[in-house]
Amino acid sequence: MTSFPASFGPHPILSSRFETLKISWALKCPQHILVVELYNPRKRNAISSKMWREIGHLFSNIIGQLDDDIRVIILKGYGHQAFTAGIDLGDASLFPTTTATTTTTKSDEETVDIARRGISFAPQIRDMQQCFTAIEQCAIPVIAAMEGTCIGAGLDLCCACDIRLCAANTRFSVREVQIGLAADIGTLQRLPKITGNDSRVRELCYTGEFFDASDALRIGLVSRICENLMQDALCLAQTIATNSPLAVTGTKRSLVYSRDRTVAEGLDHVAMHNALALMTDDIPEAVSAAKQKSKPQFQRIPKHSRL
Amino acid sequence: MTSFPASFGPHPILSSRFETLKISWALKCPQHILVVELYNPRKRNAISSKMWREIGHLFSNIIGQLDDDIRVIILKGYGHQAFTAGIDLGDASLFPTTTATTTTTKSDEETVDIARRGISFAPQIRDMQQCFTAIEQCAIPVIAAMEGTCIGAGLDLCCACDIRLCAANTRFSVREVQIGLAADIGTLQRLPKITGNDSRVRELCYTGEFFDASDALRIGLVSRICENLMQDALCLAQTIATNSPLAVTGTKRSLVYSRDRTVAEGLDHVAMHNALALMTDDIPEAVSAAKQKSKPQFQRIPKHSRL
Amino acid sequence: MTSFPASFGPHPILSSRFETLKISWALKCPQHILVVELYNPRKRNAISSKMWREIGHLFSNIIGQLDDDIRVIILKGYGHQAFTAGIDLGDASLFPTTTATTTTTKSDEETVDIARRGISFAPQIRDMQQCFTAIEQCAIPVIAAMEGTCIGAGLDLCCACDIRLCAANTRFSVREVQIGLAADIGTLQRLPKITGNDSRVRELCYTGEFFDASDALRIGLVSRICENLMQDALCLAQTIATNSPLAVTGTKRSLVYSRDRTVAEGLDHVAMHNALALMTDDIPEAVSAAKQKSKPQFQRIPKHSRL
Amino acid sequence: MTSFPASFGPHPILSSRFETLKISWALKCPQHILVVELYNPRKRNAISSKMWREIGHLFSNIIGQLDDDIRVIILKGYGHQAFTAGIDLGDASLFPTTTATTTTTKSDEETVDIARRGISFAPQIRDMQQCFTAIEQCAIPVIAAMEGTCIGAGLDLCCACDIRLCAANTRFSVREVQIGLAADIGTLQRLPKITGNDSRVRELCYTGEFFDASDALRIGLVSRICENLMQDALCLAQTIATNSPLAVTGTKRSLVYSRDRTVAEGLDHVAMHNALALMTDDIPEAVSAAKQKSKPQFQRIPKHSRL
Amino acid sequence: MTSFPASFGPHPILSSRFETLKISWALKCPQHILVVELYNPRKRNAISSKMWREIGHLFSNIIGQLDDDIRVIILKGYGHQAFTAGIDLGDASLFPTTTATTTTTKSDEETVDIARRGISFAPQIRDMQQCFTAIEQCAIPVIAAMEGTCIGAGLDLCCACDIRLCAANTRFSVREVQIGLAADIGTLQRLPKITGNDSRVRELCYTGEFFDASDALRIGLVSRICENLMQDALCLAQTIATNSPLAVTGTKRSLVYSRDRTVAEGLDHVAMHNALALMTDDIPEAVSAAKQKSKPQFQRIPKHSRL
Amino acid sequence: MTSFPASFGPHPILSSRFETLKISWALKCPQHILVVELYNPRKRNAISSKMWREIGHLFSNIIGQLDDDIRVIILKGYGHQAFTAGIDLGDASLFPTTTATTTTTKSDEETVDIARRGISFAPQIRDMQQCFTAIEQCAIPVIAAMEGTCIGAGLDLCCACDIRLCAANTRFSVREVQIGLAADIGTLQRLPKITGNDSRVRELCYTGEFFDASDALRIGLVSRICENLMQDALCLAQTIATNSPLAVTGTKRSLVYSRDRTVAEGLDHVAMHNALALMTDDIPEAVSAAKQKSKPQFQRIPKHSRL
Repeated sequence: MTSFPASFGPHPILSSRFETLKISWALKCPQHILVVELYNPRKRNAISSKMWREIGHLFSNIIGQLDDDIRVIILKGYGHQAFTAGIDLGDASLFPTTTATTTTTKSDEETVDIARRGISFAPQIRDMQQCFTAIEQCAIPVIAAMEGTCIGAGLDLCCACDIRLCAANTRFSVREVQIGLAADIGTLQRLPKITGNDSRVRELCYTGEFFDASDALRIGLVSRICENLMQDALCLAQTIATNSPLAVTGTKRSLVYSRDRTVAEGLDHVAMHNALALMTDDIPEAVSAAKQKSKPQFQRIPKHSRL
Repeated sequence: MTSFPASFGPHPILSSRFETLKISWALKCPQHILVVELYNPRKRNAISSKMWREIGHLFSNIIGQLDDDIRVIILKGYGHQAFTAGIDLGDASLFPTTTATTTTTKSDEETVDIARRGISFAPQIRDMQQCFTAIEQCAIPVIAAMEGTCIGAGLDLCCACDIRLCAANTRFSVREVQIGLAADIGTLQRLPKITGNDSRVRELCYTGEFFDASDALRIGLVSRICENLMQDALCLAQTIATNSPLAVTGTKRSLVYSRDRTVAEGLDHVAMHNALALMTDDIPEAVSAAKQKSKPQFQRIPKHSRL
Repeated sequence: MTSFPASFGPHPILSSRFETLKISWALKCPQHILVVELYNPRKRNAISSKMWREIGHLFSNIIGQLDDDIRVIILKGYGHQAFTAGIDLGDASLFPTTTATTTTTKSDEETVDIARRGISFAPQIRDMQQCFTAIEQCAIPVIAAMEGTCIGAGLDLCCACDIRLCAANTRFSVREVQIGLAADIGTLQRLPKITGNDSRVRELCYTGEFFDASDALRIGLVSRICENLMQDALCLAQTIATNSPLAVTGTKRSLVYSRDRTVAEGLDHVAMHNALALMTDDIPEAVSAAKQKSKPQFQRIPKHSRL
Repeated sequence: MTSFPASFGPHPILSSRFETLKISWALKCPQHILVVELYNPRKRNAISSKMWREIGHLFSNIIGQLDDDIRVIILKGYGHQAFTAGIDLGDASLFPTTTATTTTTKSDEETVDIARRGISFAPQIRDMQQCFTAIEQCAIPVIAAMEGTCIGAGLDLCCACDIRLCAANTRFSVREVQIGLAADIGTLQRLPKITGNDSRVRELCYTGEFFDASDALRIGLVSRICENLMQDALCLAQTIATNSPLAVTGTKRSLVYSRDRTVAEGLDHVAMHNALALMTDDIPEAVSAAKQKSKPQFQRIPKHSRL
Repeated sequence: MTSFPASFGPHPILSSRFETLKISWALKCPQHILVVELYNPRKRNAISSKMWREIGHLFSNIIGQLDDDIRVIILKGYGHQAFTAGIDLGDASLFPTTTATTTTTKSDEETVDIARRGISFAPQIRDMQQCFTAIEQCAIPVIAAMEGTCIGAGLDLCCACDIRLCAANTRFSVREVQIGLAADIGTLQRLPKITGNDSRVRELCYTGEFFDASDALRIGLVSRICENLMQDALCLAQTIATNSPLAVTGTKRSLVYSRDRTVAEGLDHVAMHNALALMTDDIPEAVSAAKQKSKPQFQRIPKHSRL
Repeated sequence: MTSFPASFGPHPILSSRFETLKISWALKCPQHILVVELYNPRKRNAISSKMWREIGHLFSNIIGQLDDDIRVIILKGYGHQAFTAGIDLGDASLFPTTTATTTTTKSDEETVDIARRGISFAPQIRDMQQCFTAIEQCAIPVIAAMEGTCIGAGLDLCCACDIRLCAANTRFSVREVQIGLAADIGTLQRLPKITGNDSRVRELCYTGEFFDASDALRIGLVSRICENLMQDALCLAQTIATNSPLAVTGTKRSLVYSRDRTVAEGLDHVAMHNALALMTDDIPEAVSAAKQKSKPQFQRIPKHSRL
């Protein structure tokens, strides 16, 4: 990786379409690297129900419809204080039970029996889960660049990203257990599969205690602790962006699929994928560029966003 | 975590009901933390067939029927010499083949054909497996606090616990391979899923060689090496015990389920769990305590022991 | 482990039957340790289509038919420059697309429609995958001893081995992404399951950048970095070879099966395996040798090579 | 079942919101039974891309937001000529390849390489699949009442329903194979799991030949052949509608989940479901009504549509 | 099958050890065929909580400890009126919710929050499920011989048996839906996998309506409708009992395992099983008897009851 | 289907390359329909070890290398007496145990311990299984046309075919149980998944009794009973052969994959397949032929044999 003077500016279209996300692109490689900032500055970027939906909307629907040639996405918190403080505890619509006892009158409340009330929570939870899973299913790699606070839903969120980098001041916590519930947006599913010390992971999940960047590195949650977080993230993004977007997408597709399957099933899946992908022009382009010691030029993949 | 002067005494009911397990509780938080000691002092706490059954019985049946409000269990070896030296090689009833050639006369022996003899081993092995799996299925987190020897069945045993802490003098070994058989009580299933270096794990499984505490930490088998083992274990237990027992149980349930499933299945499962669990009073209790900066008080879960 | 003066010589039968593999055995324990060297000295041991097939043939068919008592296999590159430089880019038959456009005339080419062309790639890829999976399915542990270059297909290859050791000068790369395709011979399936930092693994897979021995150790790809690579590998091999080959095989079988299954399924599988394996004479032999503090003598398993 | 004079009228809200679906309700039990008609009268109810999306939209989003107390849905074709003639071959937007060659100029076309073109088809196919899977995931039972033609996508569609009834004149065909492609919207996945003669099913899938109502009954595709189709469908719907909607939803949920899982997983899932559902008032209501030989009255489940 | 004059008498040991099950054996082949009758004559053999536990106990624990050489079990209702009327609605301990509101005072009730109450139901349901699953896991084939009423839990029960025969007067019903709950003891999991018309099965599950013997035959629930039920059942049992018990057990094991797995996994499992079972003396015994046109004599499998 | 005067002659190349298989093609459509006859006329086409290997070889390796345009394969027994009488009991090499006691001297025999002997059976069984599974994995549909005897391995064999037709005189039996072993070549895995009456299937598997063509039809083992077996088989084959071979192969691939997977996984798999297959020229060819009411002409798929 070469040194990289970072700078980026608002995305011409997207920056005005989201309220809780600030969307920019890197000026040096405008169509390749998108920077998405969680934006709730007064609450350490806490995730309101609106932000939740906007994250889902961006990754499920919007990115695939852009004409831009986006190849890597960096997800970060606005400012330096926090990646995100997690769920916005002041947003009542995020709490099914609390909502029920708060927004309906006592008499109404009693007419809906317990089972009916409970049965309606599961689809709500799954909708919230899907907003973060959209990151995992997005065909483009997503790098979480974290500094400051990353707790609760913030941990769920970064676990759905491909790569996690953090600054030395980052503090993490599986906070949900401390407010009386089991984390249900992905931490308990993904964290043990992306790290290498289940004993320590369970400690963190049962206590909800804070852990710092060096602990995160030790268990394998982050790739490394960065002195200059955004510069490192942009350097990494740029390196990925120079590779064939088809090859990178196929790699992500295979990694996500294989994580949850047997090795045999994963091999079969990538064989099917490459049965198609081997017909790309990118391979001869890469090979001939390598021979000429030039940089290969790869076309964008038009309008695609999902694995 | 605050500092914690540890001390504990015999459990009023359980201490007299088990022969090979010493069962105490922590005096500072009597109903919350149970301490279970493997007790076979003359044989470095080797696991006899009686101890095997008592472990299964305790975790499958007894704990769920207590009126106590137990929230964390610490499993350790009696004394400081050994967590456990593994299977009690002197207990003939633990060895199907040896038993067969020892306890029946030659002439009797020959009347049972090989296939019939072999076919009857599998249920015996599964019964032994289930005694340790009961720890994994117990709704309450179990911390293994290990010092000295931990070999063979001891490794199977600690891998079925949630969290593993050890003293610097702890020595581990996947010993089974050295006595001519493949470990069949869980090490080969659980060890690779809770650690992060499959290459080193296979070395240990194929050689049966000893590895020490720092190697255990390096591969991710233990959370950390403790200078003051029991104090650390009790501190950790106490921290967990202050959280909602419903939230902790739900977290364990989701972690155990999700380890063996796809992320999508794990998410669906925790959504179903929370559809019910979100109706708990623990969430408003936790939220209101947080606002008042007081300690939340959570009720026990009556008579439950299994996930 | 005792100190071990290493030396080995050509295998009397196999050495003449393979062109791209040099096959020797360790002279000190002639029938126990086989050393297989990838041999393509002018191209840093790049894997030609012939080498590919020979690897598959050796591990699928040949080893199980030898009369030797082979208990461990060491896989290394010829010389010290490279484990292997990966796929032999000059071997056209390894590239389905390139082949198509090269070896058929333009007019012929156009008569085969795209779907028919693509549909025929998948079986070719699966055949190539199977050549490396044969190592995983071989009943005998395989140690990859790596120094110098290990890129692309070399990484796929070493991930199919049981244990990975490397010298300090080893350099790795998931190179496929840099030539425009998703790695399809096993790296994307196996690497995340044998290491403990998914974030760093994805970085390496999306960038294709080189990583060195210490990074390989940090993520858990190798057991350790060896000062004297072959001596360490032979020592380790010898230690494994002194154990019961039946116990070692059963252990590998259970580890490979359980990696891809639930813990419950893995336990059931090993119970079935031991229902048969407990009837071996190796257990009484091991127990009695332990009592007499002598070395147990285990017979070979005649003609077996697959799990 | 009592006799049942059938009659139904347009649904006050929905009837005006869909173009390709006619939506009515049964006048005798207005809020309980919804009748959805595939409406493309000039093309034997062929499924255009608009109808495809409207089916998905109705079952995914709309039904769950109605204030009506809908308990059963009947899906039929408009008129008596056809359930549906399958995909609307005249609607170019349903054919990825055709689209490509039609809507872009030849020169543009050639700039997108084969792999990029192919890679973008999969998400389109999955979107189309999801429109029919929405029926399977709808919390309310769906009865397909079929007469006349039911071919291609029509078969995919009815296989996603819960119950299939047909008139004697119904003719079915897995038509896709006859237009050169493998059926990809669910027939190949669901048909073998809902019938009991795989040999005959494969014949039908490889030939694409027509099969009649009695053949459909013989292989188990339909429950029975009805002389008076709509009366039978309404009778059946009414019988289901008198049961607790919570019990019916739970039954569907468990059947759909268990079809794809082991018996043990299915049992675990329904145990979790009933842990919540047993707290309903419907059970005491049903039991007390049974004692009093009166009809139990069950409340609706507010705003729910998905399993 | 030869003609078979049926007659049987009380089992010497078991008949006195169960209250709700009458246990006899067939006098003509005393140690081979056990007849178990559901016995609750005043309530059409309704299943009380005691009967539930006794069924589980018999099949899980008792049969495997008998010295008898039991090879087939016939399960029937006492008398001719009913196989069983299903769950004993008068037995309060079978209904978690009802129990809760009945046996505790209102004030006590309110102290346990909803989530804690619900969370304790799941283990209870799983215990009840396990009592019936014990039949499926019993190493000995179980034939359900049914006449008269078979509803609710009776259907769950017979679906866990291997073979189902019925008299012409048998009436079945998935009754649970009519008392407000989803069947949770196995019908929804097993019925669709053992029959061949999912459409009709869903009708029956959503309506709870009765269906008769010929409908049961048509969907594939029973093998056939018997004019002389017990004679047919005994004939069939005797035919099975003349085969090698090892071969029959192995066949059941493979069928039960393979039902829930891929064909590849099932093949692998039976290969492992036969690796052991092929060493039986039963094969040469059967082959030599066939040559001599005599009846082969197979030894019993000592003390085994579980797959 | 039009009427079809059947006649066929020896295949020019293959007929001389197999000893135990007679290979012809249908003269009316020479390159499309291959007829394979099991040939062991003195033993009712019993399957010797040579026939076993030749079946595997033909379907795994040979068919995919032919230059012929084969689109359907018919598998039948030579003559009218038997499809096949199953395993050739006189061929010692097919019986691992018998072999052991026969071909080695008693003294040698005793030197190999039980576990080593047993452990070597599993790979042998899996090799035999693979010979029949090759039919399932062959990209071309295989029709079993059966008359006379079909027992033991014959049933295993026909269950691996796509479609089963039989004459009225066909008699089937799961014979293995009668010679003391559990069927291990596929019947127990495939038969329950292709039929619709598990109760009757288990009867047949536990008794080994014969069942006739009408019973085979009733449980769903065969599509229908044919008066003129070969004419029906050829008619059916010809109908399939007129469809696009790409569409037929894709259909088989999806059916085989989906049988063993969830509906969701099956849908995903066929979406990936069609992402490639939709680029075929067969679709426009089929559509334009349909418009012109002419017969579409589809090209062969060059050199492919496996799914």
